Amino acid sequence: MKKGLAIFTSGGDAAGMNPAVKCVVEYATKRGYEPWLVYDGLRGLIDDQFVRAERDLVSGILHRGGTILRSARSKRFFELEHRQKAYENLKKRGIEKLVVIGGDGSFRALNQFYADFGVPFAGIPATIDNDIAGTDYCLGVDTALNMIRQSVDSIRDTATSFSRAFVIEVMGRHCGYLAMVSSLACGAEICLTPELPYDLDSIGSRLQADIADGRRYVLAIVAEGTQMGDYLTRWINDSINMEARLTVLGHVQRGGSPTVRDRLMAHKFAVGAIEALEVGKTNAIMVYRDGDYGDLPINEVCDSKYVLDPKLLSMCADLSK
Amino acid sequence: MKKGLAIFTSGGDAAGMNPAVKCVVEYATKRGYEPWLVYDGLRGLIDDQFVRAERDLVSGILHRGGTILRSARSKRFFELEHRQKAYENLKKRGIEKLVVIGGDGSFRALNQFYADFGVPFAGIPATIDNDIAGTDYCLGVDTALNMIRQSVDSIRDTATSFSRAFVIEVMGRHCGYLAMVSSLACGAEICLTPELPYDLDSIGSRLQADIADGRRYVLAIVAEGTQMGDYLTRWINDSINMEARLTVLGHVQRGGSPTVRDRLMAHKFAVGAIEALEVGKTNAIMVYRDGDYGDLPINEVCDSKYVLDPKLLSMCADLSK
Amino acid sequence: MKKGLAIFTSGGDAAGMNPAVKCVVEYATKRGYEPWLVYDGLRGLIDDQFVRAERDLVSGILHRGGTILRSARSKRFFELEHRQKAYENLKKRGIEKLVVIGGDGSFRALNQFYADFGVPFAGIPATIDNDIAGTDYCLGVDTALNMIRQSVDSIRDTATSFSRAFVIEVMGRHCGYLAMVSSLACGAEICLTPELPYDLDSIGSRLQADIADGRRYVLAIVAEGTQMGDYLTRWINDSINMEARLTVLGHVQRGGSPTVRDRLMAHKFAVGAIEALEVGKTNAIMVYRDGDYGDLPINEVCDSKYVLDPKLLSMCADLSK
Amino acid sequence: MKKGLAIFTSGGDAAGMNPAVKCVVEYATKRGYEPWLVYDGLRGLIDDQFVRAERDLVSGILHRGGTILRSARSKRFFELEHRQKAYENLKKRGIEKLVVIGGDGSFRALNQFYADFGVPFAGIPATIDNDIAGTDYCLGVDTALNMIRQSVDSIRDTATSFSRAFVIEVMGRHCGYLAMVSSLACGAEICLTPELPYDLDSIGSRLQADIADGRRYVLAIVAEGTQMGDYLTRWINDSINMEARLTVLGHVQRGGSPTVRDRLMAHKFAVGAIEALEVGKTNAIMVYRDGDYGDLPINEVCDSKYVLDPKLLSMCADLSK
Repeated sequence: MKKGLAIFTSGGDAAGMNPAVKCVVEYATKRGYEPWLVYDGLRGLIDDQFVRAERDLVSGILHRGGTILRSARSKRFFELEHRQKAYENLKKRGIEKLVVIGGDGSFRALNQFYADFGVPFAGIPATIDNDIAGTDYCLGVDTALNMIRQSVDSIRDTATSFSRAFVIEVMGRHCGYLAMVSSLACGAEICLTPELPYDLDSIGSRLQADIADGRRYVLAIVAEGTQMGDYLTRWINDSINMEARLTVLGHVQRGGSPTVRDRLMAHKFAVGAIEALEVGKTNAIMVYRDGDYGDLPINEVCDSKYVLDPKLLSMCADLSK
Repeated sequence: MKKGLAIFTSGGDAAGMNPAVKCVVEYATKRGYEPWLVYDGLRGLIDDQFVRAERDLVSGILHRGGTILRSARSKRFFELEHRQKAYENLKKRGIEKLVVIGGDGSFRALNQFYADFGVPFAGIPATIDNDIAGTDYCLGVDTALNMIRQSVDSIRDTATSFSRAFVIEVMGRHCGYLAMVSSLACGAEICLTPELPYDLDSIGSRLQADIADGRRYVLAIVAEGTQMGDYLTRWINDSINMEARLTVLGHVQRGGSPTVRDRLMAHKFAVGAIEALEVGKTNAIMVYRDGDYGDLPINEVCDSKYVLDPKLLSMCADLSK
Repeated sequence: MKKGLAIFTSGGDAAGMNPAVKCVVEYATKRGYEPWLVYDGLRGLIDDQFVRAERDLVSGILHRGGTILRSARSKRFFELEHRQKAYENLKKRGIEKLVVIGGDGSFRALNQFYADFGVPFAGIPATIDNDIAGTDYCLGVDTALNMIRQSVDSIRDTATSFSRAFVIEVMGRHCGYLAMVSSLACGAEICLTPELPYDLDSIGSRLQADIADGRRYVLAIVAEGTQMGDYLTRWINDSINMEARLTVLGHVQRGGSPTVRDRLMAHKFAVGAIEALEVGKTNAIMVYRDGDYGDLPINEVCDSKYVLDPKLLSMCADLSK
Repeated sequence: MKKGLAIFTSGGDAAGMNPAVKCVVEYATKRGYEPWLVYDGLRGLIDDQFVRAERDLVSGILHRGGTILRSARSKRFFELEHRQKAYENLKKRGIEKLVVIGGDGSFRALNQFYADFGVPFAGIPATIDNDIAGTDYCLGVDTALNMIRQSVDSIRDTATSFSRAFVIEVMGRHCGYLAMVSSLACGAEICLTPELPYDLDSIGSRLQADIADGRRYVLAIVAEGTQMGDYLTRWINDSINMEARLTVLGHVQRGGSPTVRDRLMAHKFAVGAIEALEVGKTNAIMVYRDGDYGDLPINEVCDSKYVLDPKLLSMCADLSK
């Protein structure tokens, strides 16, 4: 009899989740597992939203954004009685292993679940914030960056038509990764993030000199976490004397068909997750580091603080001052 | 000696302006005019920002959003002395005709200029609001609608991943055209515009019934002019008890490579503008009505109030209640 | 008891079919019908591939290209015995009306079916060739044109980088509509179609003069039906002495998320189809003419030859000589 | 007096060249060089097509595909007398260093130029084939892959609508990198490349089993270098008995706005190139290896054969049999 393996998505949605789901199902099948889909994340584990992963359910999803398995928060999973219920849902179907696609909160929850009931899992990091320790890349980041790029390129059309400044707020509560990379990629003149101190006086002098030298428009990208969008917009209006507008990109950044990079990462993480489970690893998190794929024990991921690439910081430092 | 003809863009930028500029230059050249570009709109007319329209200046612009001629406001143009200056700039170059791409404010300004100095112009309507009387279509509308579509399709990825509501604010201070058409095109459940009365109680009952029947997520599109974005978002949270988020699309809507429809309209309006000037029409505005191209005297455009297509209103009426 | 109404797609696939399916289902439901989906077109009618059109089946399809109902050819439908089978499939479910989304071949087949069994239908024209008589627009055309635009804009990047000529073959066996409109929209220097005579000598002289005047690259768009792609490419190489490459766009043109125009048209045609059936019209084809929506008896559509807009022909005439 | 530094692009065009040009100019200026642009590659070096790199010339190019500096082949550069001419063009402007963006043929040419005249250069690898030894990544690859992805996603719309097979030929004369990665990213069932032996009998059995199990459509991606496009299409028609069509993507793959990855790589390679020249390195090629940026002496790049990542090969092996 085949051993059951269940897959679900958890936490904020990210492009790349669907290709990862498809790949896990296909590779697990190939390796002799009976794959199950769980809808609505941890909540679905408790509330028994399991479906056998038939071909049709994961066909034609490779190019779709978001997650067809849906995601949801679940405070109940913090309570043993509900985890007990989740365990029974697994047990009655012969499901012995789990693959979760999500963030470190979800990994920790499953780590506890393992401590309780001994069900091993493999974790695939997915979050557009790219702020999970131990891996240089999380699913969804490249698609989010390219959605931002398209929006900023579009806004630039208006900026150049009017000699105006545009402030664009991108996602990132605690992490400026999206803001920094998109500033470099889109040629922003200003980038404000939680990680880098900024100096408006110095920025002001730099822009004034630049405008005197012929610059006609200004693009600024700020991370949500700085809460500087409104202020910076008014400041450019007042101090630089250039008409400025704020655009808050919002959830446009989360969606969109996964890019090739996200699909390829999804493929490699998915294969890695099944292989880690096969060789008996428990609670391993898939990572991409120094250009290579591997996995790490969960404590090396969840007990560490994510640190931004210092080279990226230094490349962006000039945009904050 | 060739007669000079100058072209400029004015008012808010709109995709389609660049193809129109290119086409006016090429067709004017073919008809024996010497074409000139004026940068920065009415301000450039006054401040003498004229450049001979060489091939290289309008090459490779067909697919670019915004306007390479830039646009700008000019209060000075309301004063005779500055219009006098503009006139002298034309005169010294032998420029006898004008083509303006923009909105009704710009058309009125040139109408006054004609009254003062007898320089005839042809107007090409361009505004993403699609609110110029006498024409069913203004340059930029189709591109703006498709930019909105892509953003809403992307947001839907997240909406379906979470059983959430998303409120999307689109441009339109006085006109709900963009909101209505994109609601139909993107399958929104709610559409609020300045033109249609709305009834939140009724919307609430409808959604509740729909959710009971299996609906998982809600998309709402509101026109900027209703100022209802924030309120509606909180209302869905509180009254419908569904987590709701607001996205203000902002200037993303204005940019982007012009769609085929905008390029084709630009072509037809441009040819029409030159032909109208050639047969001696003064102050004619290019229009698209009932599936056909033509032109109207400026007073039939600027002295009328734009009226939304009643069929569109009736198609959207159900989304406001 | 509710009256049944079945919908299917037939002929070549076109963007806009999915929104039309969704809209027909929703509007039919609202008007009190019980809607059915038929898969695989006329073949499915015979082979009994009917499914009740539940909400989930048409949810989330508005933005998808192609047709979820699939399409297929069926020679069997020309034979009475198989049409008889199709009729029985309708009868046993109480389906009294049909909506077909497709081309004139499909309309004719259903016309015969009506003659046999008296089942009325409404037809929604869909074909990227835009060659159905009586209507200015068929579903799928705008999306196809914008897919071509994106491809040509991309090819232009290479053309401008190398001082090269690119010949791009677009779809259209008997009709040059796509080739003409995309030539205007993309600024092609050459356009060859089945409708317009072309004169390579004259084109050669024109290009030589243009190159002498500074032109660096050449874009040519040819309709598939001319079978001139290969020849023109070699001819530019040899006669113009400019390195030339051929790209056959192929089925890339057919796909892609439907544009706003195709979604809106789908909506209006779908509503029109249900309303036509409701007021007792039989065998009416939805049309868009002179900027307005309506319907025509099938013989006015299928017994007429499609004629290209003479204005479009005259706008493109210069590109063939 | 400032030292001159010239930049040019060479070989096949690739997205990412423009951001690299912009970045080299900006960073070189910051480091005290006087930057020059050379148009038309090696040919322009000989024919004296130099322009001072003013701000306006590299403004607004970050998001444009291809290369604004154009590229061209030059057999004359193989002859000393023409290289002598190129050297004089540099000398008279005080240009002492070169940055070339292109492939290994261009690097070798400049290596010879260095041997002749002692002008050091830094090379930035750019080719969508991704087949330069010593680096895991060449500019243009990610954009090309995403252009392919969009085309294949579009073709899939038609494939799923008809139960058909589509064979898609992608670029790659000697290298199957694009074919392999896009097969994984787009979920192709078949992938034929120059590197992997293929077994049509085995593929046939696999597909037949898959079709029996419910598969409705087939996507195959073949690298140009296999010359198998036509044959495979006929073979699927005949042996698998599924209607099959061939699409040759052609130069659509080369264009398009550079993705974030290509822009970021361009940035890092550009900064690396200037820094390598600054510290006195001669003839260094920028590389990205094992997740990190660096440079290699030219002989380590040009005297080695590019080897495809064995993991990629093994991931794709199942698609060739």
